[in-house]
Amino acid sequence: MQQDRSSEERMIDAALRAWRFNADRIDAFFSALSQNQLEQEIAPGRNRLIYLWGHIAAVNDGLFPLLGLGTKLYPEMEAMFIANPDRAAVTIYSAEQVKRAWSHINEELFAGLSGWSPMEWLERHTAVSVDDFLQEPHRNRYTVVLSRNTHMAYHFGQAILTKPREKKS
Amino acid sequence: MQQDRSSEERMIDAALRAWRFNADRIDAFFSALSQNQLEQEIAPGRNRLIYLWGHIAAVNDGLFPLLGLGTKLYPEMEAMFIANPDRAAVTIYSAEQVKRAWSHINEELFAGLSGWSPMEWLERHTAVSVDDFLQEPHRNRYTVVLSRNTHMAYHFGQAILTKPREKKS
Repeated sequence: MQQDRSSEERMIDAALRAWRFNADRIDAFFSALSQNQLEQEIAPGRNRLIYLWGHIAAVNDGLFPLLGLGTKLYPEMEAMFIANPDRAAVTIYSAEQVKRAWSHINEELFAGLSGWSPMEWLERHTAVSVDDFLQEPHRNRYTVVLSRNTHMAYHFGQAILTKPREKKS
Repeated sequence: MQQDRSSEERMIDAALRAWRFNADRIDAFFSALSQNQLEQEIAPGRNRLIYLWGHIAAVNDGLFPLLGLGTKLYPEMEAMFIANPDRAAVTIYSAEQVKRAWSHINEELFAGLSGWSPMEWLERHTAVSVDDFLQEPHRNRYTVVLSRNTHMAYHFGQAILTKPREKKS
């Protein structure tokens, strides 16, 4: 990136870097685990890793319609990983299927995010009406992406608790 | 906020909103806990809540020098909550002291962040040299704030595990 980029282009670059940082560390962490390891709970009685991974992927998948990028790639993940808690009476994806969905969603999503001009980034997201957006212009795509990025970090902080004890959490 | 703000001002607004969202939910969660409750571990053998709260506050305190806003307000928290793990042979703050430091740091920090122009937001942070910044202009204040915001979310996701079981993590 060059210094002669505009301020808003540099801020978009910052948001995309922050996104990729989280997506990459989540990918590295979960992709290295076996199906058995993914059955671990993040804490006693809490979600299993495979549920958490699917949850992050499914929430990211929801960004396609929310940001006006298209429809969800894996709409069936909603029932498996968002609408129902872990171990509900619903069959969820295998590790292999979660991994494939996660990778596919993130590739397509990042490609979609990478194509917008600054003005397009600041357009309303689809869950806010035209009228409401006039009063609340912060309900835009850029804000949504920052927020979903912290959602990834929030759950990654939980997933990492299954790693052997380190000096710092 | 008005629609006639510039694109970069709207992106700064987005970053500040994202920051305040995390800072506020962390404040609401920890401030409601007693000293006894703050002694809970986030998972067996893991950090206690009081350590985690102090850790988030201490890392945020490090933003003052990193962003060129001044010196740390509570430099002694570095040894208590960053350099040493929980339960190390070092006396840490009481709940009351952590709460006071956390509030003070966040008030001063938010005031500091609220005063910058877009160009000031995109200035280098103090851990990067002038020469390196020419090659890596993404190492700026804006990127640092996005990154420290995900740091807050990462640990908040851990802290929340001490709440009674809910349907979703």
